[in-house]
Amino acid sequence: MRPISNEVRKDYLLARWVIIAAERARRPSDFMVKREERFEGVCPFCPGNEHMTPPATLLYLWRDGVIEKSKDSGCERKKGWLIRCFQNLYPALKPLKTYSIKPFRMDPAGHHEVLVESPIHEGHPHLADVSQLKLMVEAYVDRLKELSKHDYVKYISIFRNHGKEAGASLSHAHSQIIATPIIPKLVNEELNAASKYFKLKGSCSFCTILRKESRGPRLIHETKCYAVIAPWASINPFEFWIIPKRHEACLSKASDEEVEGLAHVLREAFGALAKLLNNPPYNFWLHIAPNPSGYEFYHWHLEVHPKLSIWAGFEKGFGIYINTVPPETAAQSLREVLKENFN
Amino acid sequence: MRPISNEVRKDYLLARWVIIAAERARRPSDFMVKREERFEGVCPFCPGNEHMTPPATLLYLWRDGVIEKSKDSGCERKKGWLIRCFQNLYPALKPLKTYSIKPFRMDPAGHHEVLVESPIHEGHPHLADVSQLKLMVEAYVDRLKELSKHDYVKYISIFRNHGKEAGASLSHAHSQIIATPIIPKLVNEELNAASKYFKLKGSCSFCTILRKESRGPRLIHETKCYAVIAPWASINPFEFWIIPKRHEACLSKASDEEVEGLAHVLREAFGALAKLLNNPPYNFWLHIAPNPSGYEFYHWHLEVHPKLSIWAGFEKGFGIYINTVPPETAAQSLREVLKENFN
Repeated sequence: MRPISNEVRKDYLLARWVIIAAERARRPSDFMVKREERFEGVCPFCPGNEHMTPPATLLYLWRDGVIEKSKDSGCERKKGWLIRCFQNLYPALKPLKTYSIKPFRMDPAGHHEVLVESPIHEGHPHLADVSQLKLMVEAYVDRLKELSKHDYVKYISIFRNHGKEAGASLSHAHSQIIATPIIPKLVNEELNAASKYFKLKGSCSFCTILRKESRGPRLIHETKCYAVIAPWASINPFEFWIIPKRHEACLSKASDEEVEGLAHVLREAFGALAKLLNNPPYNFWLHIAPNPSGYEFYHWHLEVHPKLSIWAGFEKGFGIYINTVPPETAAQSLREVLKENFN
Repeated sequence: MRPISNEVRKDYLLARWVIIAAERARRPSDFMVKREERFEGVCPFCPGNEHMTPPATLLYLWRDGVIEKSKDSGCERKKGWLIRCFQNLYPALKPLKTYSIKPFRMDPAGHHEVLVESPIHEGHPHLADVSQLKLMVEAYVDRLKELSKHDYVKYISIFRNHGKEAGASLSHAHSQIIATPIIPKLVNEELNAASKYFKLKGSCSFCTILRKESRGPRLIHETKCYAVIAPWASINPFEFWIIPKRHEACLSKASDEEVEGLAHVLREAFGALAKLLNNPPYNFWLHIAPNPSGYEFYHWHLEVHPKLSIWAGFEKGFGIYINTVPPETAAQSLREVLKENFN
């Protein structure tokens, strides 16, 4: 099932091609570099240092055995939180009362938030308790619901940078949320292709992907509510996607069972990745439907891209990728680690 | 002319937005990191080591004061070259006699070559003689003409990775050439937008860009045949584009004067970049019309992207960029260095 010679593959939806370089294929051990420990001094995201960051827009407080949702106001910085979300100290976009959108220029209206996922500095998905990861997912949902109330918000990008090489400037477990007055380029492209597919076939492209990949060599993991696959045209080594089995346009409409299920599958998938490749740097991002409704044909999912190679002139200048780990190989390796450790 | 608050800008042609983060704008000195020297052992691209690489597909030999074009055959490795081009030792694509193209899968037909730009290890554009850079440009043209003869070649990507952080695995001055049976994604997008503009306005989008930017705060340098600009929606700090003034779809149709002019402008622009930012890593790529003809509306150009920041989840997952150096600031800094050093 694994290609033995190089093969050029197109993404399920995007007009994006990748050269699967099976002839110079690399093994997991080739990526097991020693990673430097980071010394950053005082962590502004750790409990006790809340005054170093702006007031919280969302807090999950632990009060007498119950989670209480709250926020800070003004100079207040509440303590005893399990989740803490606040405006980025250097926000790329900010709420604006008036703003203009022209063909080539827009005012920087929007939101740019940091979501601290845990009071524990190293509370990353591969180490955290499932109960804490569930709070993280719930907080994603809360921010999606809250930020989508603004009429200038057309899209909410949630992503996570892990490790210095993947662009994380601080190592405390955190995600970022950027709400924009435009639909991002890659999301637009995926939406257009998914809409075209839906009109042509009368069904959802991601539901089709799930059906096809669930029996194949690229399936990594499966739970009641989710499938984890190495996508057919993975552009990065050990890339994987977490796709909900139930067709739904946005994570914000996930059921309680699906929220809890995502926490479990995150713990397992990132546990396996960290085990297999010695806690590699990565980026993950959520692809969801834009704000407001009208995108029911879309199917939200979470994409995980380990940062194990450098995108150079070919990737950046032309948008064609070279991946030295066939997704079938990546899936097999991750599957084996999952079986050994999480069954 | 320089933005003082953040601003969201769209590319001239692509549906690509960048947040110009003027509020956290950084100065050139912020990017002056100490760069490690690289020790790589024997360089396979240096004269004397030709046996470490495949036979040359193009050689410029220095013979009795005259440049002679040649190639190697079989086990032969000719000496005394000024330019040496050969198949990549691990080619992503290879010439194939038969090949199939399906909607989601293609055979890896094509060419993947390394073009050693100089017998001098450190013969990079910011250090090389203009006469040597002229040979490099001539060799680009020769390979474009030769590779475009194959009917399976739809596009020829020429790019240069400089410095380890920008993906150069060897430090000897070299470019790469990848000929593909498809038109790359980003080129396709640019072509579609340029074609649309041409149909709408009856003129070339790049000729319009040249006219508008030639009087403005983003002009870096101007010679008889070229303009160097920091593009309006630069996605990377100190990004610049070299655009020929004469409308032409492909570098392969450049006049002798334009070839020589490009050598000069490369020396000057990269000289200024290296001086300003202490020889930063970068990628450059040529955007040219596809193979064969029919793209006369297009206007070739060379894009230079210094690698001074990390693309993380937002950039990779959504295709929106954050640039902490407004192009107007970048242009001013580069302009000043150019004036001081190359006038």
